[in-house]
Amino acid sequence: MLDISQAYRLLNHGPTVLVTTAHRNQRNIMAAAWNMPLDFDPPKIAIVIDKKTYTRELIEASGSFAINVPCRAQAEMVVRVGASSGRELLGKEADNKFAVFDLPTFAASKIAAPLVTGCVAWLECKLIAEPHIQDTYDLFLAEVVAAHADERVFSDGRWHFEGPNGESYDELRTIHHVAGGNFMAIGEAFKA
Amino acid sequence: MLDISQAYRLLNHGPTVLVTTAHRNQRNIMAAAWNMPLDFDPPKIAIVIDKKTYTRELIEASGSFAINVPCRAQAEMVVRVGASSGRELLGKEADNKFAVFDLPTFAASKIAAPLVTGCVAWLECKLIAEPHIQDTYDLFLAEVVAAHADERVFSDGRWHFEGPNGESYDELRTIHHVAGGNFMAIGEAFKA
Repeated sequence: MLDISQAYRLLNHGPTVLVTTAHRNQRNIMAAAWNMPLDFDPPKIAIVIDKKTYTRELIEASGSFAINVPCRAQAEMVVRVGASSGRELLGKEADNKFAVFDLPTFAASKIAAPLVTGCVAWLECKLIAEPHIQDTYDLFLAEVVAAHADERVFSDGRWHFEGPNGESYDELRTIHHVAGGNFMAIGEAFKA
Repeated sequence: MLDISQAYRLLNHGPTVLVTTAHRNQRNIMAAAWNMPLDFDPPKIAIVIDKKTYTRELIEASGSFAINVPCRAQAEMVVRVGASSGRELLGKEADNKFAVFDLPTFAASKIAAPLVTGCVAWLECKLIAEPHIQDTYDLFLAEVVAAHADERVFSDGRWHFEGPNGESYDELRTIHHVAGGNFMAIGEAFKA
């Protein structure tokens, strides 16, 4: 588990993320480009969750959700997840997107939402209820209660997609959506 | 000027930005990594502006500000701008950061804030007053009333840092702050 005061660094560079949720026997996953850190310590984040999403229903019911930071190897999955609705699967044999898209997950430490295997960072979030901005702007605020990262590409508070011994982790680079399935991978690190 | 319905695409991939402000004969500039689109059309954005900043005083007085998207060639300037306060310059001979850092600007079309020359995109914003979240979370919402981009790297609704004839616009790539002057440039474009 990551030092919680570094959680903002997982989102500071603006990656597109996956939001996972769980409530009772239901769970869901959606894609979300519109997210940002909101505070350092205790860490908070802000994220836009549209009214029509099933994810929103599960967030409002459970009071929690996870932000998963996917990588280039998962980009096609992110598009597929973003183009489908979990609500339409209810009652079917494969009644959730994890089953339909064959997404392995592991347990979070402090919330019920599953964390997606193969992502490069994860933030466990508890909703800060602000009904006015939720209703008016689809804007949700949350406190980050635990954070994790793939140590191959994030450690000592920094992303490092070029490994220390010349390894290249291009398939683990974070992805940044523009529109319509057009992404950019995060690129070269530099100190200014 | 850009089709306003595409304004969100200038921020969708998560760049670190510069916020410029003007009120009466005062103007200022600050760096801000914590920004995101909030809606498509009319386009809205969300951004975190700390209580102690002079920028915040000018936004609350003028009701408007500009978001400038800087590029790799400007990274050192972004760090310098982010590390200094415009309030401390008041009363000095060079009484604003534009003068101190020798930053050329040009006029916005619908607001008083200056736009920074050499950036690759600009969003002119009018504050949507939400005092509770401004006071509690330093969170500001705004409507984008005009948007512009450097056509060498953004046109037809897409960023293209690799030019059509093999040009490379690496110095114009957007920059994504992690912490402490450590940035990543946006990297390779791909379709998923």
